[in-house]
Amino acid sequence: MKKIFRTTKRLISKIGLPPGTPVYMGEREREKIKISVIDYDPQNVTQKEISQIKECCSYQDKETVTWINIDGIHEAEVIKHIGKDFNLHPLTMEDIMNPGQRPKVEQFDHYIFIVLKMLSYEEEEKKVTEEQVSLILGKNYVLSFQEKEGDVFNPVRERIHHDLGRIRKSGSDYLAYSLTDVVVDHYFLILEKLGDKVEHLEESLTGGQDDKMLQQIHSLKREMILLRRSVWPLREMINSLERLESSLIQKETLRFFRDVYDHTIQVIDTIETYRDMIFSLHDTYLSTISNRMNEVMKVLTIIATIFIPLTFIAGIYGMNFELMPELKWPFGYFAVLGVMALVALVMVIYFKKKKWL
Amino acid sequence: MKKIFRTTKRLISKIGLPPGTPVYMGEREREKIKISVIDYDPQNVTQKEISQIKECCSYQDKETVTWINIDGIHEAEVIKHIGKDFNLHPLTMEDIMNPGQRPKVEQFDHYIFIVLKMLSYEEEEKKVTEEQVSLILGKNYVLSFQEKEGDVFNPVRERIHHDLGRIRKSGSDYLAYSLTDVVVDHYFLILEKLGDKVEHLEESLTGGQDDKMLQQIHSLKREMILLRRSVWPLREMINSLERLESSLIQKETLRFFRDVYDHTIQVIDTIETYRDMIFSLHDTYLSTISNRMNEVMKVLTIIATIFIPLTFIAGIYGMNFELMPELKWPFGYFAVLGVMALVALVMVIYFKKKKWL
Amino acid sequence: MKKIFRTTKRLISKIGLPPGTPVYMGEREREKIKISVIDYDPQNVTQKEISQIKECCSYQDKETVTWINIDGIHEAEVIKHIGKDFNLHPLTMEDIMNPGQRPKVEQFDHYIFIVLKMLSYEEEEKKVTEEQVSLILGKNYVLSFQEKEGDVFNPVRERIHHDLGRIRKSGSDYLAYSLTDVVVDHYFLILEKLGDKVEHLEESLTGGQDDKMLQQIHSLKREMILLRRSVWPLREMINSLERLESSLIQKETLRFFRDVYDHTIQVIDTIETYRDMIFSLHDTYLSTISNRMNEVMKVLTIIATIFIPLTFIAGIYGMNFELMPELKWPFGYFAVLGVMALVALVMVIYFKKKKWL
Amino acid sequence: MKKIFRTTKRLISKIGLPPGTPVYMGEREREKIKISVIDYDPQNVTQKEISQIKECCSYQDKETVTWINIDGIHEAEVIKHIGKDFNLHPLTMEDIMNPGQRPKVEQFDHYIFIVLKMLSYEEEEKKVTEEQVSLILGKNYVLSFQEKEGDVFNPVRERIHHDLGRIRKSGSDYLAYSLTDVVVDHYFLILEKLGDKVEHLEESLTGGQDDKMLQQIHSLKREMILLRRSVWPLREMINSLERLESSLIQKETLRFFRDVYDHTIQVIDTIETYRDMIFSLHDTYLSTISNRMNEVMKVLTIIATIFIPLTFIAGIYGMNFELMPELKWPFGYFAVLGVMALVALVMVIYFKKKKWL
Amino acid sequence: MKKIFRTTKRLISKIGLPPGTPVYMGEREREKIKISVIDYDPQNVTQKEISQIKECCSYQDKETVTWINIDGIHEAEVIKHIGKDFNLHPLTMEDIMNPGQRPKVEQFDHYIFIVLKMLSYEEEEKKVTEEQVSLILGKNYVLSFQEKEGDVFNPVRERIHHDLGRIRKSGSDYLAYSLTDVVVDHYFLILEKLGDKVEHLEESLTGGQDDKMLQQIHSLKREMILLRRSVWPLREMINSLERLESSLIQKETLRFFRDVYDHTIQVIDTIETYRDMIFSLHDTYLSTISNRMNEVMKVLTIIATIFIPLTFIAGIYGMNFELMPELKWPFGYFAVLGVMALVALVMVIYFKKKKWL
Repeated sequence: MKKIFRTTKRLISKIGLPPGTPVYMGEREREKIKISVIDYDPQNVTQKEISQIKECCSYQDKETVTWINIDGIHEAEVIKHIGKDFNLHPLTMEDIMNPGQRPKVEQFDHYIFIVLKMLSYEEEEKKVTEEQVSLILGKNYVLSFQEKEGDVFNPVRERIHHDLGRIRKSGSDYLAYSLTDVVVDHYFLILEKLGDKVEHLEESLTGGQDDKMLQQIHSLKREMILLRRSVWPLREMINSLERLESSLIQKETLRFFRDVYDHTIQVIDTIETYRDMIFSLHDTYLSTISNRMNEVMKVLTIIATIFIPLTFIAGIYGMNFELMPELKWPFGYFAVLGVMALVALVMVIYFKKKKWL
Repeated sequence: MKKIFRTTKRLISKIGLPPGTPVYMGEREREKIKISVIDYDPQNVTQKEISQIKECCSYQDKETVTWINIDGIHEAEVIKHIGKDFNLHPLTMEDIMNPGQRPKVEQFDHYIFIVLKMLSYEEEEKKVTEEQVSLILGKNYVLSFQEKEGDVFNPVRERIHHDLGRIRKSGSDYLAYSLTDVVVDHYFLILEKLGDKVEHLEESLTGGQDDKMLQQIHSLKREMILLRRSVWPLREMINSLERLESSLIQKETLRFFRDVYDHTIQVIDTIETYRDMIFSLHDTYLSTISNRMNEVMKVLTIIATIFIPLTFIAGIYGMNFELMPELKWPFGYFAVLGVMALVALVMVIYFKKKKWL
Repeated sequence: MKKIFRTTKRLISKIGLPPGTPVYMGEREREKIKISVIDYDPQNVTQKEISQIKECCSYQDKETVTWINIDGIHEAEVIKHIGKDFNLHPLTMEDIMNPGQRPKVEQFDHYIFIVLKMLSYEEEEKKVTEEQVSLILGKNYVLSFQEKEGDVFNPVRERIHHDLGRIRKSGSDYLAYSLTDVVVDHYFLILEKLGDKVEHLEESLTGGQDDKMLQQIHSLKREMILLRRSVWPLREMINSLERLESSLIQKETLRFFRDVYDHTIQVIDTIETYRDMIFSLHDTYLSTISNRMNEVMKVLTIIATIFIPLTFIAGIYGMNFELMPELKWPFGYFAVLGVMALVALVMVIYFKKKKWL
Repeated sequence: MKKIFRTTKRLISKIGLPPGTPVYMGEREREKIKISVIDYDPQNVTQKEISQIKECCSYQDKETVTWINIDGIHEAEVIKHIGKDFNLHPLTMEDIMNPGQRPKVEQFDHYIFIVLKMLSYEEEEKKVTEEQVSLILGKNYVLSFQEKEGDVFNPVRERIHHDLGRIRKSGSDYLAYSLTDVVVDHYFLILEKLGDKVEHLEESLTGGQDDKMLQQIHSLKREMILLRRSVWPLREMINSLERLESSLIQKETLRFFRDVYDHTIQVIDTIETYRDMIFSLHDTYLSTISNRMNEVMKVLTIIATIFIPLTFIAGIYGMNFELMPELKWPFGYFAVLGVMALVALVMVIYFKKKKWL
Repeated sequence: MKKIFRTTKRLISKIGLPPGTPVYMGEREREKIKISVIDYDPQNVTQKEISQIKECCSYQDKETVTWINIDGIHEAEVIKHIGKDFNLHPLTMEDIMNPGQRPKVEQFDHYIFIVLKMLSYEEEEKKVTEEQVSLILGKNYVLSFQEKEGDVFNPVRERIHHDLGRIRKSGSDYLAYSLTDVVVDHYFLILEKLGDKVEHLEESLTGGQDDKMLQQIHSLKREMILLRRSVWPLREMINSLERLESSLIQKETLRFFRDVYDHTIQVIDTIETYRDMIFSLHDTYLSTISNRMNEVMKVLTIIATIFIPLTFIAGIYGMNFELMPELKWPFGYFAVLGVMALVALVMVIYFKKKKWL
């Protein structure tokens, strides 16, 4: 449940503060914020770690494309400083520091603010965790904020360094697209994990080992509910990004964002498909339980219905009345055994006719 | 159920009256209406309680921003007087006094009328209550009407007094935003309470103590139904506020209202997520019951199916026929015991094969 | 079911007739049609019953506002005559006489045609009935048609006679609004009745007396289905009334229609809320039944599982074999009693562990 | 299932043919195609059967309104000939001959093509069948194609012959409307049949005779599913007909099409209402079964729980131990009977407390 | 499950690569790519297999319509070469090679890119498989890419060769339409298979042989879920194709695409209808199980309730008390038999009254 409450609890602690106050609302990280800068044009690339925040500012007006990546968002001072340098709106700064945002796009005079959710599957806990990634797309720079250090953007760094594809030849908008694309592509990893679980459940259902099945269906449903909650706003966000008529995004790059949009649609389609499957699975599981109950009841009924009347007959001749003529008959015992066999036979025929046997 | 009927009953008492008649339709409060005025510009702040209603009027044309807060809406005379002073439309006055409104925004020639619902969680009764807050946003004044005295607006008062954020430097539109923001932020408190309940139920489900679980699921569903009913119109309202092309709201302030809108979307998302979770929980709960029933039935069936045939065999040799050869056999008794053991064994093997044991 | 079929059956009897033929399709009323006229301007009011239909016509061109109310729509001749006098479209006349219309608004060259559904709760039969109210809004007259005589419009008459509110000072559009408003406000009476029933069911559910509960839930669901069917088109209708750009409705009056719209939204909200509640109630009811079944099964299983093995043991020692060593043991009887107690104890401990006891 | 497959199978046989090939895809009818022509203006009417297809063509350019009705669509040659004479698009000809179309409207340069579904209820088989009716609305002619001879258009013929309503005074657009109206009005007949069935089921539910109820609910659901499938596209179709800005349909006639639209909305409303009712009925039926099961279980449990312990006690004193002191007691028998009565009493009190009795 | 994962797994392998890299992501096929060219104008047709990829290019600027069909998309080099020759966008090339696309349409400067899904039913495995078909519609050429060699386009080839319909007289847009039409028409084959299965299940339900029914319903639901996932985007795609204002598609051809759109709507309608039917079927199936359980329980209850009390009576007189007066009565035995018959009779009457017999 942690994930849902993050949003709530953080926002509560904000009630009463003037809006636009940048206060970090995630769980406090102990490591220092790490700032790395990659500056490139078609000819050159330079990458370095920055210790003095002031250095950031100098990149703002360079002709080259500058990507400043900030890992860690817990030090209000640092964020504030960067916000001042790059002239960010107070609400933007507040949103960067509050990891409980929905994915969204906001257009400001001189920059576009993009909030993304990055999902990752934690193998140990077997559950999905989410991290907020904020991007500031300016004229020739991109700021990216991550909650904690991670290697998700490495493929993009590789492409810049080895000049793969068109990234070095394109502007900051293409860089922002590349970062968005990498984040969205990570959703497919989550989908694969979930797909495996659904497949596993499907097999359990037909295989018949359903010890923990109900629990698994329930927890899968919950994961799906939370995943949908992350993905739908992502779709809206990328859609509104496409419709944004901003000079910061070139027409050619829009086509690439359209491609990302297609991917989010695919993610949503797959989630909806899984969802439908899990619901169908639960229904089938319920029917299976009912069927088994039916089978159990039939066994009980057959046994009880055959033997209860027989036991009654035996009971009659176990009575101790002084005058019971049958008891004296020489073949009374065998006659009774015969009657019992007949009764049992009738019952069995009856059950055969009812198709219970 | 109280909350739903408030709307209905009050409106019934209105049938037949000419529309626009300001009649108080809430439960009658005994305390006197309390009017407090805060008047500020970037340099100065003055705050005072007002006893004579006439005094209100004088603030209307001052250059400074004036915030008149009215606690209590049950005295038709007072509301009528204020309405006349500030030239309010009869329907506005009627709506202010009738707490059964949906959240909405209405644009009039010289003011914007905003109706909000404030939710609070009553610890003793463990349920959510709602209160209507009406705002009148004029050129350089804001009127706020609350059903009863409360401290919800205190953070805003603090900010004005201590000149925090941009509130003192901004106009009446920013004040209206601040009040709306405070009300919406209170929804997160409610969500946290509900989240705790959902979490608690999730744990009960796996833990297995489900004495009152059904009751709790049902009451949680009801709270969710009522909460949705409050929140959806809030969203529409803030959305239509954004689209209002009014000279009373400056472009810069619109961005802040957009921020409030994002918050309401988050509230709705969370409610929908909780809702889905509760439904999934109920389904799982039902399956759990079915599973248990199945288990109970199996125990019964196993016991009955093993012992009923055995009892029948014992019954046979309890019959009192004179001629029953087996009774005379020296090892008849032990032979029968052996047969019984065999029958029991066959049954147990059968159940093992069926995986009931 | 009557209500649903009204529409169907009436329209069937029309198949084959040229469209626009005014044929009365309701159940034939025996009373004569009653026509009453109220004619007013800010200074004067005159009210009278009309016997000669021709008199109606004379009011059409007067400067004053004229409200002609026709109770009863079963005499084709009368309706035809009025239709001719006021130059109504044949389809309008047909719709007035056919009470199976959906609420709708139609704009014609010189008048606006409004169809409303009036709901009332019949105490004896404990069910909701509906009546069609048609309004013709002309330049300075309003025609209102009711299926049968009723007192629903009395509050409006009062307001005209006693010059309450702005009705006397306003035109025919305000009069049409007042009549619509009165009809819509009656929906809240129905909602109150339904709310009482829902509340009653909620209490029954926790109280536990559920003799007729299922029947009540089912009939409440049906009433809700029928009510929704009436109210949704009402909403569309008032919405399209608002968007009508007609010179017959002044801008100021539109605000009042907006108020009626808000009321219909409130009605719909409440119906949807009730609906959700009843579905939640039904689900909970079903779970309750399952729970009880479970409890019943447990009792049966506990009793049977404890006593069936004991009975079997007793059966063994009731056998009449000549050689049964135990029978001769001096404490055989007490030993067997002891074994039985032990078996019972083991079973009880087993059930305690399973939490069935 | 026949009805669903018609579409599918026919289209399959078409795969591979160039689009626009008029191939009859319905079940082959044996009768000859029958062509009848009605030609009228306000003064005159002439009606005749046509044997030579060429004759059709001559009517195309006459000033009078001509209605050519073709019963039977299975002879490709005839349809092709007509299509050539009236200059129809190949796709139109293909659609006319393929009865698996959805209701739709298509605008061509010189005509409007309308596809309708006519539903009729076959009394013998107790199910709904559908037939395709295609209309070609030209400048002063209407072509109507029916799958087989029928009397559905007779009321329109009557109106033309007896000059009822405005049909003789109006153009071909009004004739097309009249034919559409007649087809839509037939839906109400189907609704009445379905309504009767729903009503019958409602009564069965409370009456309690539910032998074939489940089967009936299921088949009613299926009919509703198929009906919805026919009606929703009809609505879209008439809606798009209204929005068609074609010189072939006069503004005055549009109002009549609006009336047909209102009727389709009513049909849809009624279907949705029935649908909701059947689902509610099914839910209630399921609850009823659960309730009965509960009752059955209670009876079993009460009987078993009272008598199993008693039988056990009797079993104890039926044991043949030599030393059983109670057997010798003078009032042992009566004491045991007393104990049994007591046990039974306790059980009964317990069940009373549990409200099972 | 294979089908769902295709998308996911392939896209995962792409993470980290610069977008627009054409990497084949389907399962690697062993056969060589096969390229065939048909070049035609109203007078002439030439068809040949191409071995040298360079030859393709020459057709690009010819006046005649050229259709280049590529079977197999696994050789990046070949696709890359063709892409270069025809000046395709890198994203287009990537999409052609990645079979996990959703059906879509993308407009580029000098061509339109269409992605389709072809469904086929594999008789052996009894399941639906899907294949991606990509079309490039240029000024006077069409490129078509299939995952593997197939005969689906043969009917179009036939039509070109034998000059059937308008295909030889029309441009490349009509050719693209013909290919799309053939693919969409194949959906009806799938629908027929599914329809047969639904029909078969319907019959099983009433017939009563439901051994594997639950499994079949579940697998049918899954197929339906996957089918819907393929078809809905197809609809959007063809819809957006219609709205594309491209000089590459002539107005006359748009009407034919409209016809394809109508077919996809029919496919969707049928799928939704089947879906509703399967859900209704599952519900009915569940009710049937409940009904049978009820019947089983009744049999058990009747037998147990009649015989358990009788056995108890027999048990009483099987007790060995020394003083049991009844045992000595001359007609005690027969009296007890009489009492037993009476008890049984009462029970039977009770069950008759309850309508359980």
